[in-house]
Amino acid sequence: MKNIDEKLSFACDYMKGAHPDIIRRLAETNMMETAGYGLDPVCESARERIRRACGCEDAEVEFLVGGTQTNAVMIDAFLRSYEGVIAAETGHISIHEAGAIEASGHKVLALPHELGKISADSVRRYLEDYYNDANHDHMVFPGMVYISQPTEYGTLYAKAELAALKAVCEEYGLPLYADGARLAYALACPENDVSLADLARLCDAFYIGGTKCGALLGEAVVIPDPKRLPHLFTIIKQHGALLAKGRLLGIQFDELFRDDLYLRIGEPAITAAERIRAGLAAKGYDLYFETPTNQIFCVMENERLRRFGEKVEYGFWEKYDDQHTVIRLATDWATDPEAVDRLLEVL
Amino acid sequence: MKNIDEKLSFACDYMKGAHPDIIRRLAETNMMETAGYGLDPVCESARERIRRACGCEDAEVEFLVGGTQTNAVMIDAFLRSYEGVIAAETGHISIHEAGAIEASGHKVLALPHELGKISADSVRRYLEDYYNDANHDHMVFPGMVYISQPTEYGTLYAKAELAALKAVCEEYGLPLYADGARLAYALACPENDVSLADLARLCDAFYIGGTKCGALLGEAVVIPDPKRLPHLFTIIKQHGALLAKGRLLGIQFDELFRDDLYLRIGEPAITAAERIRAGLAAKGYDLYFETPTNQIFCVMENERLRRFGEKVEYGFWEKYDDQHTVIRLATDWATDPEAVDRLLEVL
Amino acid sequence: MKNIDEKLSFACDYMKGAHPDIIRRLAETNMMETAGYGLDPVCESARERIRRACGCEDAEVEFLVGGTQTNAVMIDAFLRSYEGVIAAETGHISIHEAGAIEASGHKVLALPHELGKISADSVRRYLEDYYNDANHDHMVFPGMVYISQPTEYGTLYAKAELAALKAVCEEYGLPLYADGARLAYALACPENDVSLADLARLCDAFYIGGTKCGALLGEAVVIPDPKRLPHLFTIIKQHGALLAKGRLLGIQFDELFRDDLYLRIGEPAITAAERIRAGLAAKGYDLYFETPTNQIFCVMENERLRRFGEKVEYGFWEKYDDQHTVIRLATDWATDPEAVDRLLEVL
Amino acid sequence: MKNIDEKLSFACDYMKGAHPDIIRRLAETNMMETAGYGLDPVCESARERIRRACGCEDAEVEFLVGGTQTNAVMIDAFLRSYEGVIAAETGHISIHEAGAIEASGHKVLALPHELGKISADSVRRYLEDYYNDANHDHMVFPGMVYISQPTEYGTLYAKAELAALKAVCEEYGLPLYADGARLAYALACPENDVSLADLARLCDAFYIGGTKCGALLGEAVVIPDPKRLPHLFTIIKQHGALLAKGRLLGIQFDELFRDDLYLRIGEPAITAAERIRAGLAAKGYDLYFETPTNQIFCVMENERLRRFGEKVEYGFWEKYDDQHTVIRLATDWATDPEAVDRLLEVL
Repeated sequence: MKNIDEKLSFACDYMKGAHPDIIRRLAETNMMETAGYGLDPVCESARERIRRACGCEDAEVEFLVGGTQTNAVMIDAFLRSYEGVIAAETGHISIHEAGAIEASGHKVLALPHELGKISADSVRRYLEDYYNDANHDHMVFPGMVYISQPTEYGTLYAKAELAALKAVCEEYGLPLYADGARLAYALACPENDVSLADLARLCDAFYIGGTKCGALLGEAVVIPDPKRLPHLFTIIKQHGALLAKGRLLGIQFDELFRDDLYLRIGEPAITAAERIRAGLAAKGYDLYFETPTNQIFCVMENERLRRFGEKVEYGFWEKYDDQHTVIRLATDWATDPEAVDRLLEVL
Repeated sequence: MKNIDEKLSFACDYMKGAHPDIIRRLAETNMMETAGYGLDPVCESARERIRRACGCEDAEVEFLVGGTQTNAVMIDAFLRSYEGVIAAETGHISIHEAGAIEASGHKVLALPHELGKISADSVRRYLEDYYNDANHDHMVFPGMVYISQPTEYGTLYAKAELAALKAVCEEYGLPLYADGARLAYALACPENDVSLADLARLCDAFYIGGTKCGALLGEAVVIPDPKRLPHLFTIIKQHGALLAKGRLLGIQFDELFRDDLYLRIGEPAITAAERIRAGLAAKGYDLYFETPTNQIFCVMENERLRRFGEKVEYGFWEKYDDQHTVIRLATDWATDPEAVDRLLEVL
Repeated sequence: MKNIDEKLSFACDYMKGAHPDIIRRLAETNMMETAGYGLDPVCESARERIRRACGCEDAEVEFLVGGTQTNAVMIDAFLRSYEGVIAAETGHISIHEAGAIEASGHKVLALPHELGKISADSVRRYLEDYYNDANHDHMVFPGMVYISQPTEYGTLYAKAELAALKAVCEEYGLPLYADGARLAYALACPENDVSLADLARLCDAFYIGGTKCGALLGEAVVIPDPKRLPHLFTIIKQHGALLAKGRLLGIQFDELFRDDLYLRIGEPAITAAERIRAGLAAKGYDLYFETPTNQIFCVMENERLRRFGEKVEYGFWEKYDDQHTVIRLATDWATDPEAVDRLLEVL
Repeated sequence: MKNIDEKLSFACDYMKGAHPDIIRRLAETNMMETAGYGLDPVCESARERIRRACGCEDAEVEFLVGGTQTNAVMIDAFLRSYEGVIAAETGHISIHEAGAIEASGHKVLALPHELGKISADSVRRYLEDYYNDANHDHMVFPGMVYISQPTEYGTLYAKAELAALKAVCEEYGLPLYADGARLAYALACPENDVSLADLARLCDAFYIGGTKCGALLGEAVVIPDPKRLPHLFTIIKQHGALLAKGRLLGIQFDELFRDDLYLRIGEPAITAAERIRAGLAAKGYDLYFETPTNQIFCVMENERLRRFGEKVEYGFWEKYDDQHTVIRLATDWATDPEAVDRLLEVL
């Protein structure tokens, strides 16, 4: 099956369906009758596999539908009504969730970013400034820290950076939460040193992205210490995030974690991205910044971009100057090496 | 494929997967690459089919994931911050959505029900009382009316009842919104005289339920006059209700409305429900109330119920008295006539 | 100073200014310079007097501006985002606060009332039904109980009733909160057996109404165990309820609790109400129901009411039948005995 | 009456009571009986005086209690649920209102500031970028613009700047709203060229600050075209912002606008601030930035500041460097020239 408009498709990582094993399992189990709302044995099996992959036997695992929804649910679950969430100013919740966090009454407390990341130092400085301000009780109480791994810029937190963030969070009593919408692309990346078990150890909650990583839809939230969020089921329902036929999510994560497929599913994306980066360098294009995962940010002269756009679907990132534009190319778990060949030809 | 615990399964209408045509189409289109967020040609085709089935060429059609989510999005879209929504005290939004409507700041203004329905008269009386109350501007402004077709009790609004509701809504300037979570079972019911075109003519918005009517998940909202809700896409995103791979929803509704399958898909459920009602009557059981659709409400003596429960999965409805319980049996689009045979034997 | 339109004024209990001691103190302290936001020595003195009157040395006392605001702040402070508040269906928060509780995302869980009161039994039944419902985690979690003393019907909880409510609240882990908008009229009522100390012992928070009880504005919230609500100051600010010149509230409560004036300030209202009730009985009017405090509910024939209304400002309560209306007469701390004389003449 | 701790008090502009005329009027009218909720003749008179001062006969004028409350009410009244408000990153709503705007579900869209102000150009650029972004419907819809006059930095918008902001707002269909918490100090400032009539002409709503400008409490919102906000009364009630004894606010604004007192009441503050600025310059202190109104921002060496702080109450603004601190001194309508003499001596 070809891209529907015959262009090469590198615009984003959610244009295809699901890993074939998922489609097969959906067909096989279709007429099975099981309890709703994620209380079925398939979901239970998926939960068990995820717990094992995370080295975290007691974790609560909940399956939600999409990333914005998961962030909104989890942030609302952790925060009290007067608390806000610290995030990079480029964080998904800061800009591209249409105010979903504020819709639950919580301010996003935006910190300056370094290629999409916030540092333990900048979080500590923010918290020190907050507590030093004589009027801090007129300000939004910083109630948790949000990061994404990989970030919206495709960059990665190193284990040491994550541990440093965790330390400052513990010092100030703040939960640390990681958005893993593209987590498979971190896990498949040679440069990455943060495992699922590390996330389970260092975060109070994180989610394992399905939608962009081989599933039709779905994100699996992992909460290492479930006592922290005693009524999460009701919170999920209240946010309209409870899937009646929850088995649909269970099936997908049960397949994604069968033989730890999830740890390898991102590899084709990384291989393809490396080839593209090498190709761009060879042709003299400027990368806007270096990222090790499945997103490539490249500066392109506008007239050249117009012609490029006739053959390739890409993502607009931002204006560079009057003559140039920054574009984003994304690969995914199912990127065809031949499509990469053709992209390199076009370049 | 049998029920996983070998019991007969009449507990609810969301225990199986999807209509086989949907599974086949999912497999066929799996590696197609299309735009995200419902902007793909499959969604467009599904929208076109729904518009045609509703006799409403200009309607906006949006695909959401679940019922509570759809209600929360649409009610928030119609209401201003100080407005509430009128609903039956038994309405799904009144009780079983964990406060999803209130989470957006809107009170549910509960009216007494008659087997799950509210009448035009009771709505008019509520509005007259509101406007006659000298302190009405200290009260929640009634901003819209919510009904469900069929209701949570499986009953149906007749066309004349719907027209009367519409008339009082128009008189007071209130949008009328219908929750069609089980709409296929209304449309397949011989007693029903309300078509999709009637809903499109008499409601300001309604949704066509997929989750309980043959889809894996998904509800299709129809807004006959889209100018009423200019930024609905952003509202959907803000509620965490925007599906990245929107095609998944498009595929399902494209199949459900291919050759108007949706108008017929509920028939097996209605046939099965009629057989069960007749069987219950023949064995001398009391129906708690009469309903024409796919839900059956029956009073059962407790000891008998205990034994019944060993063989049949049913839904608890409410305590009747110390010796009796009201239970709910539900059939669906895929109820096996042989399972009905066996149920009648158990009875 | 006469009523501005020369009618007798029994419409409500917030038509005059403040106790003369308050006005005098305001004038005396006017040019004093003190810290804002309630951090001044006058507020501290008022807090100390209130703590003493409540027999509760460790209580936190906060001064807010009005009743709806106080209810909204305190309910939001106690509840988590997914929790609702149990209240009588006639409770002020249920009807006459324009959805202020829902605006913070919390459902009001309305129970049937008996003359404005809810009983421990009905609360227990509600909680048992909730926990017995197999789908209770799809419902709003009952997170606290709201009562008012006196109620919106002018009735009083007896100490035994309050203790019973407290017992069921403790059993289920729910805070009990009392709205004391008209508390002075309870405390001055011979029938009352609930002291300030009882409220402090039996409630997790309650407020001592100023606005309707001799102040220009202001309500004093008492929280016997302040550890329960660690960031209340910020919550107050977030609700727009923090008064910059907080001293204005401190002055009023410092005067209202000088020599425990507050315990006596309602007496003229009670005396006047008793005279009116006796007069109504003597003239053969029907009381709609009996209440011991400063509100009188009376059934009046419509033509007679028309003429009565030419001479007396009264409150419309509700339609009784086509020929009769229920009206409310209210007395207050400053009701003039001569005005009562003239009212009795008019009757 | 001296400052209670005998220090010179320049920490803020809300430490004293009210203009003596207000106290006198409060005493005179105390036992008058009038309707509640701002429906009394005194409020009506105050409204009429304000309309006249604004040259705006048809304006709706509402009296609220405090600034944060007024901002929260008005922003919620103007915005739809999915909209946010554009403001300077230093705006009061951005930082010092404890998330009151987000508590109603609205994001504050923070723009860089120039001494507390935002320019028409920066607003236009923000809006252009928004509409040019292919994913703008995943972002918060910019629904209105918030400014303050004077700003939190004490600076003023010139009439031409305001007109330019109005032009871009009109181009994009956004209401323009001005927070006038300290408006009297703008109006009394020789440098100011924006009259009340200009504000009424160029803003869709603004408020005339009472709390910091001679009242005990209270802010008067002016809405030149009341049709824009048809149910404002209910919104005010919903926010807990409706004062039962509304007359208390009417009295204060009736006095503040008797003979246009409000236009002159800030003069002593401006005179005092100019003397202090001149004194600081003469002693070689650095102003952190120049402002023409009643706030003075000054850099002080830390050891010197310690000694200064023993004699003068000041406001901490921010750390300048390890050796220096930025402080704020504020004058007000009642600043005593002798206190300024003594302050200059201390310097």
